[in-house]
Order: sequence, then structure tokens, then C-alpha cells
Amino acid sequence: MPIHFNDDIESQDMNIDGTPTRTLRTQPERGVIDIIDQTRLPHALHWVRVATLDEAAHAIRAMQVRGAPLIGVTAAYGLAIALASDSSDARLQHAAALLRSTRPTAVNLHWALARMENALSTVPTDERRAAAWAEAAAIAEEDVAQNAAIGRHGLGLFRQIARHQGTALNIMTHCNAGWLATVDWGTALSPVYAAYDAGLPVHVWVSETRPRNQGLLTAWELAQHGVPHTLIADNAAGILLRQGKVDAVIVGADRIAANGDVANKVGTYLKALACADNNIPFYVAAPRSTLDFACFDGAAIPIEERDGDEFRRVHGLDSRGVPSALSQLPDKEAVANPAFDVTPARLVTAIITERGVCPASREGLLGLYPEAKHG
Amino acid sequence: MPIHFNDDIESQDMNIDGTPTRTLRTQPERGVIDIIDQTRLPHALHWVRVATLDEAAHAIRAMQVRGAPLIGVTAAYGLAIALASDSSDARLQHAAALLRSTRPTAVNLHWALARMENALSTVPTDERRAAAWAEAAAIAEEDVAQNAAIGRHGLGLFRQIARHQGTALNIMTHCNAGWLATVDWGTALSPVYAAYDAGLPVHVWVSETRPRNQGLLTAWELAQHGVPHTLIADNAAGILLRQGKVDAVIVGADRIAANGDVANKVGTYLKALACADNNIPFYVAAPRSTLDFACFDGAAIPIEERDGDEFRRVHGLDSRGVPSALSQLPDKEAVANPAFDVTPARLVTAIITERGVCPASREGLLGLYPEAKHG
Repeated sequence: MPIHFNDDIESQDMNIDGTPTRTLRTQPERGVIDIIDQTRLPHALHWVRVATLDEAAHAIRAMQVRGAPLIGVTAAYGLAIALASDSSDARLQHAAALLRSTRPTAVNLHWALARMENALSTVPTDERRAAAWAEAAAIAEEDVAQNAAIGRHGLGLFRQIARHQGTALNIMTHCNAGWLATVDWGTALSPVYAAYDAGLPVHVWVSETRPRNQGLLTAWELAQHGVPHTLIADNAAGILLRQGKVDAVIVGADRIAANGDVANKVGTYLKALACADNNIPFYVAAPRSTLDFACFDGAAIPIEERDGDEFRRVHGLDSRGVPSALSQLPDKEAVANPAFDVTPARLVTAIITERGVCPASREGLLGLYPEAKHG
Repeated sequence: MPIHFNDDIESQDMNIDGTPTRTLRTQPERGVIDIIDQTRLPHALHWVRVATLDEAAHAIRAMQVRGAPLIGVTAAYGLAIALASDSSDARLQHAAALLRSTRPTAVNLHWALARMENALSTVPTDERRAAAWAEAAAIAEEDVAQNAAIGRHGLGLFRQIARHQGTALNIMTHCNAGWLATVDWGTALSPVYAAYDAGLPVHVWVSETRPRNQGLLTAWELAQHGVPHTLIADNAAGILLRQGKVDAVIVGADRIAANGDVANKVGTYLKALACADNNIPFYVAAPRSTLDFACFDGAAIPIEERDGDEFRRVHGLDSRGVPSALSQLPDKEAVANPAFDVTPARLVTAIITERGVCPASREGLLGLYPEAKHG
């Protein structure tokens, strides 16, 4: 696989042999961060420098970074970057508004920006830049710690299932809620990595996740870590569940409403339906920042409609191994491209957060986060 | 779009402006048929000559022809072609066995070959070749007439739905069960064409149908006929149904068991689940030859597992408009590729056949086909 670096980034190899590396590198003293351009994965590992507010907004909007937690962290750093030459209240508000407008569905984006604004609004403007970098770093560190905790709690669930059967645990996931979607570990994949590292035999069914094929990212990072896995078309999830080849489905989330309804990558709802129809547990793994207690239920979650070209263009390596794209549909053909769907709480077996495992309900979530009652 | 003809086929343009043309052309006097290579659609319309038994088997196995009804008709002609130089009992049995082995799930294949063998076994060998061409032609003619009847019955259902709402009828389909999957009209799309031709405002949601993308074939043929339609990723079916943007889902079938369980293109089951969860009718349209009264229920239907390269390779036009392919996944990555799934009868609102509309149950099917009680 070709690995590219921008000219001004030191040519330090990212470890692609299983040792965790964080998905972003920060240089507070230079006021820049480096991110992996995930639109080019799995065909090329390309680091991109983000040095301006507009570059940060572009990175999120164009899905160079993706995954609700990583979107939130990148937005926080984007705000810090935006304060380089002007740290006034006006600049802070402008930058937060611009970053907030990049993606509508993931609530972590709003959460991270609100936290940054809260932390910075009372800080004198001449100290804001340093405070912003410190707060963004704190958000990133918390993401890592929370994902590790999700892994431990999810591993407990996996051990219960494994105890009942004795053979390898077959986990299905959708989209990418792994290391690449976070700063480290991932949400839905964190329990998978925890299980693998604990010696539990585990195999992952990875659905392609059209039209953006984030399943290929999941396969790529599972391969880096050595976790056995098999790719499937999104359409194949139902028959595999019916055939008893799946012990549990686990996904991440872009926003969880107060009642436990889950907005996640489009296609999640179909897998949840198939789980319910076959009595297979359907788990959602997400940190506190994905919970939106201000959102009454899933009907209130905005669903992003993305450009039809995501569907019309397909990507891969040509016969010479060069990343390339083809048009599978004429431009004149109409395409609808909703990026998310909402899975009703009744189809969710449990939600796994950094605090533990709870039912997908208002009571369940408030049981883990009693402070949200007064929020 | 480039249109290619084999050198020895007269350069007669296929009408691509909405006037129905049959999907195969026969030349009994030369002992050959010409088929459309559907693996090259929608990027190129390429007719291929089938002049030997092996070419007929290859056409079916490689999915140059696809769709349960067209597979059956092509197999019937393949048997006729196979008798060119040898019409002995042994040759007949060998040819039927070879053709039968090409695809396991679609029962029309078995039905057409059994009908041919029945019709030919009592015919003197020196008359068999002519009789085989005549019987294959009869099967093809019946397919056209049956599909037209399915269109009329389905139109009746669509009119009932349209009466309740007043706006354009939004129909969703999966895979391609249209003109291209049959000799003419199609099964699931026959009611759509009937509705459009009758002036009923109709719009079709077309799901991509990974990994073979037969949805692109559906979009192509709907465009030829002028029927408004919108492509979606397979994953998007659930949210569109939840949002009330779909009035009915209609699909074809590769085999319908005696109890009404339906084997169809992988992903069908997920759409049926989403229909049931949102109280949207889910219809299956198929001719008699798709019904397998000898098959007790869906669990007895063999599910074809196809090569993972169907998933690994993606197809389209390059920047010069030339049909091309890319590798989206390294060869070493494991892929599971079941081509079909089974939708339990309880999720099927009704089955539409050439004889009418019936519940998806043993009683319903025997109501339309009472003669099958003694079959």
C-alpha cells in the first residue's frame, strides 16, 4: 500500500503492524495537527496537515476525519487552531459556528464545541490560545480513556455470550466505529480488541457500508491488529443472522436520544431489525459525548443528506495498483443519499458506555448518568 | 454508451428509447441465440452469441443472463442448442444435468429443464432438435404472457394504494426483476410499467443491490421506458420506509416454497423486515415456474455462495468513458458472498402471479393453483 506524507511532515512511519497509534498528531507549538485522510484509506495511508480553521472544517465536512468521537476531537483542535492570530470573542464564536455547521447528525461535534466555548469564554483573550490547546488535548485524552473503559465493559458482555457456546465468538459490525473513528481503541471495536487481546477467540463480520465503504476501513484496522474478519455486502447481514452465524451485532452511534433511540450510519436500523427477528443481541457502544439528553427521541435527530456522487463514484486500485475512481452511474441519474438512520430503542439490547452497560431507555441512561436529570 | 455487436451478428440496433425489445433473439435455423451480456450493463450494451451447450452454461453461470425467468428460458434454448449434432437420450440427459448445475437457487431453471426433458423424451431422436426449439419458444412465449398478466394484477394493487393517497405512488424494488430478468416486461417491474403506461404517477426507489449492482440494470431499463426513479444504497431502504417515503415494496423471486417463504436476491429479507416494522405492503411477483410446491419451506432452499471477487472488484466508466474495473479490497481479505436470502412468508403481504394475487401461504398458493395439490 502506498504511504504518502505531505512534504513538510517528517517521514515517520505510522505503525501498521498492530501497535496502536493515535489517529491524530498534534503540534501545539506550531499550531497545527496532522490527520489521516480517511477518504484515501484503505488504498493509501496519507497524512494531511490541518493548519487553518477552513482546513479543519473541510477535513470534517469532506470526511477526511469521520466517526463521531474523532469529529468532536478534531473540531476542538480546529477551534484551537482558529485562535492562532485572533482569540477574540467574535473569532471564537465564528469558528465554533463554522465548525458546528460541517455535519448535522453527530452530536459529539456540538458537545465538543460547547465544552470548548464554555472553557474559553472566561479565559482572558491573551491566554485563550494555550487554554484551547490544553482543553482539546483533555478531550482527546478523555476519549482514549473512555474508549478503553467501553472495551472493558463490552468484553464482559462478550464473555457471557462466549460462555454459552464454547466456539469462536462471531461479532458483526457496521460502518467503522474503531480506532479510526476515535483517537484510540474505537467504540464498537474496543470490546473486540479487548476480547482479542484477552485471548477470546473472536471473528468479525464486517459489512461494506455503502456508499462510503467504511467497512473497508474496519477490515483494514482489524487486519493491522490481527483480528480475524470477513467482509460482506450490507445485504448479506440478514441471511447470516438467520443462519445462526452471528452471536452479537455491535455498532457505534452518532447520537443517542434521551429515550435510547440511536442515530448511526445508514443501514444500522436494518441490522437491528434482523437481530430482533432472530433473537440476537444488538449492542450500541458510545461515550457520554454521544448521548443527547436534550433530544427527546430519534424523531428529533437531523439526518444528513450527502451528495449523490458518493454513490455514483466507486474507488479502488487499478491494474497498476494506483488509487483510482470510476463512474458507475451517469450524472443525470437521481440518487438519494441519507447518511444515517435511526434505530428505535426497542430494537437495542443494551447501550455500552464508559460507565457501564444499560438498557436503551430514559431510565437506563439516567441510571448511568444521574447528573443528567438536572442537566 | 458504447454498443458492441459480435462480428457475425447483423448490426441491428436494439431500441433503447422505451419500445420493448425482447432480451433474447433466436435463430433456430442456425441453431443459435443472441443474448445481452448483462455483466457489461449499464456501461455497455453488448450482444453475445450462444452457439454451444458450454456457452449456454457459461452464460447462466457467469450471469451474462440473470433473473430467474430468463435463466429458465435460456436453459431451455441451451438444451435445444445442445441437440444440434447429437439428439440421443444420453446427450439430452448430459445437457440437462450440465445446465441444471449452473445455479442452485432459482427453481425456474429446474422447471424449464424438466419440462423440456418431459416434452422431448417421447419424441423420436431425429425430430428432437426441432421439437426442442419449438418447446423453448413456447416457454419464452408463456413467460411474456405470464409477465403481462402479473402486470395487470399488480396494477390493481397499485391502484388501490394510489386511491388512498392522491400523490405519486412511491414503489421500492430490489435487484432487477424487470424486462432484463425475463423475456419481456419483467415480474416485479411489470406492474410498474403497467402503472406508468396507464398514466398512474409512479416513482421507483431502486436499491443498488451490492455486490453485483443489479439496481443499476433496473435504473437503466426504467430510464429507457421513461419511468421516474431514484437510486439508493441498499442501506438506505430502512430510513426511507421509516420516513413514509415508500408506499409499497415489490420484488421478484428465485424460488417460492410451498408455504410462501421466498428466496430472492440477498438483501430482500432486510427490506421485508423494514416493511413489516412500518406497516408498508411487501409484494412478491413471480410466475408459476418460480413456485416450488415440492419444497416444504424456505429452509429447504439451497443458497448459492458466489465468488468473493464479485465484492472485491468494482466496475464503472473511467475518465475516458471506457468500461473498467478496480480492486477495492486486497485478494487476501476474506469475503462471504451469499447470493440470496429467504424471506419468511409471515413478512410477505401478498404474492402476485399470472393467475392473480394470493396470501403467502400454502392455502393461498393452492387457491391459485389447485392442480398442485395432486402434483
